[in-house]
Amino acid sequence: MSLLVVGSVAFDALETPFGKVERTIGGAATYFSVAASYFTHVNLVGVVGDDFTEHDAAIFRGRRIDVSGLERAAGKTFFWAGRYGADPNERVTLATELNVLATFRPKLPEAYRSAKHVFLANIDPTLQRLVLEQIKGKPRMVALDTMNYWIEKTPAELREILAHTQILMINDAETRMLSNEHNLLRAARHIFKLGPKALIIKRGEYGAMMVHNAGVFAVPAFPLEEVHDPTGAGDSFAGGFMGYLANASRMDDAVMRRAMVYGSVMGSFAVERFGLERIRHLTRREIDARARHFYKLTHFRL
Amino acid sequence: MSLLVVGSVAFDALETPFGKVERTIGGAATYFSVAASYFTHVNLVGVVGDDFTEHDAAIFRGRRIDVSGLERAAGKTFFWAGRYGADPNERVTLATELNVLATFRPKLPEAYRSAKHVFLANIDPTLQRLVLEQIKGKPRMVALDTMNYWIEKTPAELREILAHTQILMINDAETRMLSNEHNLLRAARHIFKLGPKALIIKRGEYGAMMVHNAGVFAVPAFPLEEVHDPTGAGDSFAGGFMGYLANASRMDDAVMRRAMVYGSVMGSFAVERFGLERIRHLTRREIDARARHFYKLTHFRL
Repeated sequence: MSLLVVGSVAFDALETPFGKVERTIGGAATYFSVAASYFTHVNLVGVVGDDFTEHDAAIFRGRRIDVSGLERAAGKTFFWAGRYGADPNERVTLATELNVLATFRPKLPEAYRSAKHVFLANIDPTLQRLVLEQIKGKPRMVALDTMNYWIEKTPAELREILAHTQILMINDAETRMLSNEHNLLRAARHIFKLGPKALIIKRGEYGAMMVHNAGVFAVPAFPLEEVHDPTGAGDSFAGGFMGYLANASRMDDAVMRRAMVYGSVMGSFAVERFGLERIRHLTRREIDARARHFYKLTHFRL
Repeated sequence: MSLLVVGSVAFDALETPFGKVERTIGGAATYFSVAASYFTHVNLVGVVGDDFTEHDAAIFRGRRIDVSGLERAAGKTFFWAGRYGADPNERVTLATELNVLATFRPKLPEAYRSAKHVFLANIDPTLQRLVLEQIKGKPRMVALDTMNYWIEKTPAELREILAHTQILMINDAETRMLSNEHNLLRAARHIFKLGPKALIIKRGEYGAMMVHNAGVFAVPAFPLEEVHDPTGAGDSFAGGFMGYLANASRMDDAVMRRAMVYGSVMGSFAVERFGLERIRHLTRREIDARARHFYKLTHFRL
């Protein structure tokens, strides 16, 4: 079943201990779509400026990604610049230029409105809500990402959209900020009162954890000798997770666990090269092989 | 097969968000012995002062712990005071008084010298070496813990003892300091050149990771709603790990993985109450039940 994503499509400037790029395509919706397209068909809602060329758009072609919902507006594409140190969990934002994203009002093409699986990537909660309001009927699954900025600046709007969210997918710092709880289990209980039935906590080099009514599932990050660029790891994780779920016939604990593993697989590929370099050139065979590596990494018998 | 440990027996003063104790029995060798005694027989080498009463020694009685190697010296027992914040991975040391540990020279009782499994807890590498020199023949397994202080102050002595160590069991900060590498896989390769065949990295609330020639194994920490006192978690982990190994007939990858799980089990119990309160009152049935919880926490099928 198809999967709808709304989020940023961006140009990124990146600096890590392994190098530097001045301008590469990025954005949450881009990483998400590319990662998810290995599992299912994706409908992309977002906006780019008139500096986004046909050459840039090649990232979406030849994949199961529909870009009829990717609006082109006058002005410049959203721009983000960031730097990572030796610790890939530590990121410094050097620049955030909203550009065309500042006035963006998402309009869903008719064909998108029957979406059964929706991912609201990290973006203004008001825009997340606008997208959800255009969907007909009740989606099977709405998942949401957000960040410290929205937790602090737009708490009411965030609560409003959380009430319509089944899965909240954020990092540990955001979990603690949103719940005002350091302990992640207590934080999860707090968050469940706001609407979500499942909390997925992304912990960067420490992996990811899912808390829901069937219990807790934890998966470590894939050990890599070189993390070239952590950008997009969380969105690639979300793409693998939601792509796997959207394609699954059931949505029980066992399926959610596998989705967590495929999310982790996509996140681990994302950080191996700069920008989208690695995840744009994958095969399903490589993805499945790495999933088996995750099994080997975590498996034990008592 | 019996297990030898050398390390500190201490009085601790502890402060955490859940409370405060002025004086409780602690020390690496204490936590290690109590944890390991659920799996195997332990011979304890250490020193206490004349302030260590029969009442204090009750912690060792009724367990498979031999204390004929626990010397009693004139003076005060080693004292450590520490404080933890909401993040249990962050510890502030308030006081370290070596007392009788300052002049301690370990002497192994004759019956201890045929030890096949040895754990050199975090202590002066010169003392670790003194213990190893008194052992007859080649032990099946020597594991070692150390800390930033010895890595910085006694690098030559530490290298000397590492050359005789099969398993190094330290935390991530120590791994990075010892190897001068942020990435843990590259750090492991560096450390293997110093002697150890396996590196076990303790990551507190993020769990533990083992790197050896059979690959990498990662186990998350057990999710707890309340971490009352993180003191001794790493030593209890080591006790569960070494206790399980000492009792196993083989020492292959599958056994090492189970040992990692039992180590994690003991570490998770240790932090549930102050000091030794929780791990002194366990049953093997509770331990095995938590091991099955770890299975549930991490298990997935592809």
